[in-house]
Amino acid sequence: MSERFSEDEQALADANASFYAAFEHKSLAEMGDVWAAASPVSCIHPGWGLLVGRDAVLESWRQIFESTVSARCRLRRPRLFVAGDVGWVVLVEELALVHEPADHVHALVLATNTFLREGGRFRMVHHQAGPPPEAELSEPTDVPPPHTLH
Amino acid sequence: MSERFSEDEQALADANASFYAAFEHKSLAEMGDVWAAASPVSCIHPGWGLLVGRDAVLESWRQIFESTVSARCRLRRPRLFVAGDVGWVVLVEELALVHEPADHVHALVLATNTFLREGGRFRMVHHQAGPPPEAELSEPTDVPPPHTLH
Repeated sequence: MSERFSEDEQALADANASFYAAFEHKSLAEMGDVWAAASPVSCIHPGWGLLVGRDAVLESWRQIFESTVSARCRLRRPRLFVAGDVGWVVLVEELALVHEPADHVHALVLATNTFLREGGRFRMVHHQAGPPPEAELSEPTDVPPPHTLH
Repeated sequence: MSERFSEDEQALADANASFYAAFEHKSLAEMGDVWAAASPVSCIHPGWGLLVGRDAVLESWRQIFESTVSARCRLRRPRLFVAGDVGWVVLVEELALVHEPADHVHALVLATNTFLREGGRFRMVHHQAGPPPEAELSEPTDVPPPHTLH
């Protein structure tokens, strides 16, 4: 894939991949390395209220890892944006999670992952995940749906 | 409010307010001024697929303004984050929209508005709006809901 990406985009793609690797590894150390340490951070898990600050975000991951037996994340159609020191990725997460006791969840989640360069690499400052609009589950289009709020 | 905000936060709050003013005014000129011109931009309206690029984003607003008789946006609990040249606001939009013919819509929408400093002021680079989790409609909490994806 690297031949398709600029150096900045590759760095962003790598940071994004590290986030999902940390999730699949259920590694709080890796997750702590993904999230920015010198910037404010915020996180919206599906169904959760906004979490503010590194401590609250990492505590949420600790709870998630604790209640998850295994996690697999496939990424659909990641789209990368880099502007100076900020980068963001919009994608659909295809999640296969096993919770205890034997509670299997398959879910599609629309996410934006926003990163900021810190010490020369992209680190996550905001993660927003929620229900995907139908339009994100099919081919890209600029045609609005019949009923649109804004 | 200015006494509560740092200079950066006030600049971010002003940029965010300009976005909703442009929406309420149904002004494509104002909306064009809100969105960044020198950076990549992306936008997820509720129910739409991701829009990429300034032209696609402004065309979406043209279509929205065309189909909207009046729009009122009240902002619940905006939370501001500034890190260097990037700033983002997480809030719940309380929308009162009138579409033709006499189609009134009241909706609550969770949104993140991301801005990047361009020419000394914050301009929008990403807008993501979708269904708000229940937890965002009540008081803030760090307690996860009973069923959580991640």
